[in-house]
Amino acid sequence: MEAVNLDAMLARFTEHWLPKRIARINDYDVRIVKIQGDFTWHKHDETDEFFLVLTGELTIQLRDRDVVLAPRELFVVPRGVEHCPRADTETAVLLFEPSSVVNTGDAGGELTAEVEQLS
Amino acid sequence: MEAVNLDAMLARFTEHWLPKRIARINDYDVRIVKIQGDFTWHKHDETDEFFLVLTGELTIQLRDRDVVLAPRELFVVPRGVEHCPRADTETAVLLFEPSSVVNTGDAGGELTAEVEQLS
Repeated sequence: MEAVNLDAMLARFTEHWLPKRIARINDYDVRIVKIQGDFTWHKHDETDEFFLVLTGELTIQLRDRDVVLAPRELFVVPRGVEHCPRADTETAVLLFEPSSVVNTGDAGGELTAEVEQLS
Repeated sequence: MEAVNLDAMLARFTEHWLPKRIARINDYDVRIVKIQGDFTWHKHDETDEFFLVLTGELTIQLRDRDVVLAPRELFVVPRGVEHCPRADTETAVLLFEPSSVVNTGDAGGELTAEVEQLS
């Protein structure tokens, strides 16, 4: 394991909605992802999901409200809670979640992505 | 759960080496801690430990080298690896680790701290 610079890692890819693993802690991943636009409504019945904004602005749409996050702001979506991430401009997010988590949760579909390891 | 601003949370305490829980993901904690000076050599035989620097500069002393982290840099100390955090100036760090983790690991001693919830 070496030190990991978040900005150096973010500079290594441009595509949206494709999470990259940058570290592992036990059976959890630290992932970074660049997003823009709307994702898909989904939930994870078996796990909470942690979002920390690195650049830009993330809106986590919940069924009853929106949570808007600036850089250095974080939110945990509890297990089983439907959510749909959205970003009007390109936004970079750090995620903590079990390595088994699939990005689209119960929704599946074409946005479902393999997690690539950045090393 | 509400959005959490890291800087607002950091503004709420001044003491060093006393980690504060700011979020939970399943049975893991997100903790923040302010540090200055040398901690104690210790290891966690049962878990990896994640460090992300928020402000300042963190040196994670390992037995064979030092890992120096600036803001937006992270490192995972693997389970069983002896380490001793150090900061020459006040430094704020985000930790991600199982909720059961005690800060001093196998070393114990007077630096052992209860984790306070900031909410």
